Formats: sequence, C-alpha cells, structure tokens
Amino acid sequence: MNKMILLLGASLLSPAIFAADWQALPSEAPAPSNNPTSAAKVELGKMLFMDPRFSSTGTVACNSCHNVMEGGDDDRQFSMGIHGKTGGRNAPTVWNSAFASTQFWDGRAASLEEQAKGPVTNPVEMGMPNLEEAFARVKAIPGYADAFRKAYGSNDAMTIENAAKAVAAFERTLITPNSPYDQFVKGNKKALNKAQQRGMKKFAELGCTACHSGAAFNGPTMPEGQGFFAKFPTFSGSEYDTRYELLKDNGRYEVSKNDTDKNMWRVPTLRNISLTAPYFHNGAVKTLSEAVRVMARTQLNKELSDKDTADVVAFLDSLTGEFPAIAMPRLPGKAGETTVN
Amino acid sequence: MNKMILLLGASLLSPAIFAADWQALPSEAPAPSNNPTSAAKVELGKMLFMDPRFSSTGTVACNSCHNVMEGGDDDRQFSMGIHGKTGGRNAPTVWNSAFASTQFWDGRAASLEEQAKGPVTNPVEMGMPNLEEAFARVKAIPGYADAFRKAYGSNDAMTIENAAKAVAAFERTLITPNSPYDQFVKGNKKALNKAQQRGMKKFAELGCTACHSGAAFNGPTMPEGQGFFAKFPTFSGSEYDTRYELLKDNGRYEVSKNDTDKNMWRVPTLRNISLTAPYFHNGAVKTLSEAVRVMARTQLNKELSDKDTADVVAFLDSLTGEFPAIAMPRLPGKAGETTVN
Repeated sequence: MNKMILLLGASLLSPAIFAADWQALPSEAPAPSNNPTSAAKVELGKMLFMDPRFSSTGTVACNSCHNVMEGGDDDRQFSMGIHGKTGGRNAPTVWNSAFASTQFWDGRAASLEEQAKGPVTNPVEMGMPNLEEAFARVKAIPGYADAFRKAYGSNDAMTIENAAKAVAAFERTLITPNSPYDQFVKGNKKALNKAQQRGMKKFAELGCTACHSGAAFNGPTMPEGQGFFAKFPTFSGSEYDTRYELLKDNGRYEVSKNDTDKNMWRVPTLRNISLTAPYFHNGAVKTLSEAVRVMARTQLNKELSDKDTADVVAFLDSLTGEFPAIAMPRLPGKAGETTVN
Repeated sequence: MNKMILLLGASLLSPAIFAADWQALPSEAPAPSNNPTSAAKVELGKMLFMDPRFSSTGTVACNSCHNVMEGGDDDRQFSMGIHGKTGGRNAPTVWNSAFASTQFWDGRAASLEEQAKGPVTNPVEMGMPNLEEAFARVKAIPGYADAFRKAYGSNDAMTIENAAKAVAAFERTLITPNSPYDQFVKGNKKALNKAQQRGMKKFAELGCTACHSGAAFNGPTMPEGQGFFAKFPTFSGSEYDTRYELLKDNGRYEVSKNDTDKNMWRVPTLRNISLTAPYFHNGAVKTLSEAVRVMARTQLNKELSDKDTADVVAFLDSLTGEFPAIAMPRLPGKAGETTVN
C-alpha cells in the first residue's frame, strides 16, 4: 500500500522546473468520501482532541504533544506522555497534517483517521490498555453522547471509528494559509523581503525542492495511504551522523522490515517550520539554521555559507501562515462523578 | 493578615436568616486597585495561563491542573505535575476563584496575584528552580514582549509581578453566572425543579449555609487576604475520618503552625461542584452524593437519608453556571529555536 518513492538529491531537476513549481497552500483540505467534514463533527473532534481524560492518568490529550496553540507540537525533543515517559521520536506538527498522505514519521498510518487511534494505547503516550477501555470513558459521559448524535445523526453513533473520524475532521480544519510565501506566490511581490527572496531562490537551486515540493513542502501529492519517503542521511559519513545520531533509528524499516526502508523517513512539511523546533525525527537539532546546514550536507552533499544559510532560514520563516481562531470546547463530564477513576 | 473565622455548624443561625441570604453570582469580579483589568492584560494572562513552556519539562501549564475547558480542575485526586509527580491536595477549581478572599486550600496566598507564582516553583507541579529562570523563558520570546507592552503600555513591563497580575486578571474573567439557581433567585421560579427546590430548603435547614454562604457559597465576603476557614472534620470520630483519611493533613496548621489551625481549611466554593469530582482537600471522595453525606456527618453531626442526599445533590447540580466562550490564545515562540531546550 505505502508505495515508496526515492529521490536522491536534485540531479534530475532543472532550476526551471523549480521555479514553476511554487504552490500556495489551499485554504481547505480534501476529506475522504467516507468521512465528509461537518461543523458538528469538527466540534466533536475538537472536544476529543483537547480532552486529557482518555489517557490512563487523565493528563495527556492529543493536544498535549500536538499543541494547536503553539506550532502543533510541544517544543520538546521527545514528547512526554503519562508518568513522564518519553518515546524516541519528535512530535510532528498537527497543523496542515491534512496535506500528508501518510501519518507518523514512518508513515505507518494511512490516514488521519487511522493515526488518531495510535497514541491512545501507546504505553509512553496516553497509556490506555486498549481502545475499548478508553472509549468506555467517552461513552460514560452524557455530553459526549449528545455530541456524537449531533455529528452523526444517530443514537448508535458512539463508536471508536466515529471518534477517530471526528478527530480527523477537526484536524482537517488545522490549515495555515496566506503566509508571506503564499502571498508572494499569488502575486504580491512585496510579501517577501530581499533575504527571503534570495533564500527562496537558493532553496530551489540547492535542490531542497526535490523532496520538499508541493503546497505543503512535503513532496508531490500522493493518494492517501501512499507515502513519500526519503533516506536520511542520503549522504552519510558526515560529522552530523554521530553528532545527531542520525543512523540510530532505522525509520520506516522498523515497520516494514524491508532493508530498503532503512533510514527512510516521511518527508515532513516545512509549513510553520520556524515554530516547530527542535528538528528532525529525533529532535536532535535545536535550531532551524543548524537543521538547514545538516539537510544541505546530508541530503544534497553541499556545505552552505553562513549567508546562504541565513537566507534559506529567512525563506523558511516566510512559510509561517495564518492560524485560524479556535474556540475552546467545553468538555462535558459526569455530574458529581469522576471520569478517570 | 489572614484573620481566621471559626464557624461550628448552624447553631447560631436561624432558618429565616438562611432564607434571606440567597445571592446570585455577580457577572463581574472586583479587581484590586493596583491591578485594574483590561482586555490586553486578560489576553496576556490567558497566554501565560495556557503556556506549558514555563515548567521545567515544558509540559505543565496552569491549565493542566486547572483546566478551564473542564470544571477548572483535572478530574484527579491529586494533580500530576512534571515527570508524573503528584502532591497531596486536590486541585481547587479556577472558575470563580476571583470570589475567594484567599487562595490555596490552606489560604496561604492572599490574592490571585500571589497564588499565580506558587505552582511555577513547586517541585511536584511546574518544577522550575526559581521564578527568575521561568521568567527568563518568557522574556526570550518576542511575542510575549509585545503582549506585555500592549497590556502595560511600557517597554519595561516584562516583570514577574506583571506576569502574575496578568494571570490574575485573566482568572477574574472566569466567572459562571446565570446558573439555574441564579435564575431562581432572580425570580424565575421554574428554573429549579421540585427536587432542586427541596434540596435548596434542606441545604439551608441542615445548616450547610453556616459555612457555604454568599454568592459563591464559600462564606461571607471578606477583605482580600482574610480567609474564611472551617475545621474539617468539626465532629470527628465518624467512620469517615479513617475511610477518607480526614485527619491526615493538618491543613492551615502546616502554614501557620498555630495549634488552633489544625485541620482548618478554606471553605471552598460550591459553584459548579457537579463538575469538580473528586472532592475535598485530599480528593478522597469520588462522588458528590458521598461528599454530601460526609459533610452532613462531619460538619453538622447529622445522618442524611438517601432522599435528602439526592435532593441536596440535585440542588448543588443547579449551581452549574454558564461558562463564557474562550478563544484559544496563540502562544508565540522563538523563530527557529526551542524555548524549553
């Protein structure tokens, strides 16, 4: 299902192609035919996304690690789940995740719907023994029964699948259009300053666009479930391999056990990248400028000057979009009773 | 400063006084003269309140334990701070905390401003070594500098005191007026059903109002900094003392070391009490009906019938008010850098 596409640097692509390929971010994300978006479904999904009571301790919500008030992540190298436990990968941003054709760093979930169920039972994340037990808490709250009824128009709608669909529907609203870059691409030539324009040109000339193409800068548009992966490091042997332990985690190989998947990673979006430090699958690089240097060296076999690095960083900074206003949901409870215990 | 008032049951008060004493919740809370509320200050305070990055791990915000999307608390017996650590007291609701004349269960903070600084350096809560280090993170974020400037009209406004003032200003907006009870008191006699009206009468007759009086049901209006405390259990010796370990925590004595403060506690608000299980300073009681039975026995030396208990619970349920809409703040960051590390 997850067809792998391997791109090795920019050698096949000409600057002319780069120049033609700049795309603005759509203001809406497509929804799958079996999960059409509705306001009531989005509201339910937002409630579930923000609610920590479906973790074993009652302290970890989706939003704990994918904080929509920040960059859609958590400012940490590795997220902290229940009882202060940590995993081994950096939390990807939830913003614009609707434009990714697979989910998780290794692309192991084919859809947002599938992804939504993963962290609930991950022992270092929300730590529930199984989805049924988590969902039993949802079912015990009368206000959630109402919200499911509104979202799905049925009294029998309280299912784990429908919960996951609602979370996915909410996530499809998490889109940040109209960044300075988008304004520039749409014709406002003053939207980017000189450094940002130089950085944009450099970004294409260097070959970053070989992988980071498309409206979300995460590769070509793929059918849902088909991932776009790249080997990182493509050019191994640099000082960065050891300094940032780039070869420690086998990436997609851990899921597929195919040798060709060793150190293969889903190409992440660069949208709002200024807001999502630290960087890479292992969160080992703390600054965006260092991340740019590492990428140039390990993916394109190039050493960047300080000026070029600064220009590319300035360009990347222009990918920070406009965040839609989000009203806090009211999280319903059981009158006079706890939900977690 | 914290003058102590001791009330032992209802013996001094007549039913007529109870009947006259029903008060609706004001829709605004008074602000101290040295911290007038403004929209910009509230917005800054909301940002700080919601931002987990000022805890040592970057995972615990004020809102983690005082979740404004829930009952202003966290559905847990003891809140969970950094690294899964827990303390020994139940998180009081932040909703309507503006109507409390002292803060914390033991009243050790004289104001919301003073309270706001406590959890930041508590080793089992936000766990920062000192306020200065926490505030250094705030200061390093350009977006916060803007927010302080807007709130205080000065470039020199980035101080710990002003941060605490902003948080307090936000908390003063967390008021839930117009509950069924409030509507009833204002003249809508249909706002409470028969069970709730019976419960209201019983609540007064039993003597609950001896302590739980006033608009917030947390005692008479006191000057800021002067607490209204009660001994719990007042009538010790019941089975509840051991079952719920009621004598284990010395309460206000732990702060004052005055023998007369042993097992003295701030009288908590009953507003939205249906939403804030589990109950009491140690969160040992999981249901509101059991909390009502325990209170009747330990504070009033009375055994309640199941019907009276249900009626009082129905009345308490009518104290759930209307929660104002809150827009999620955008939490600014350092471009291309981490805040937490």
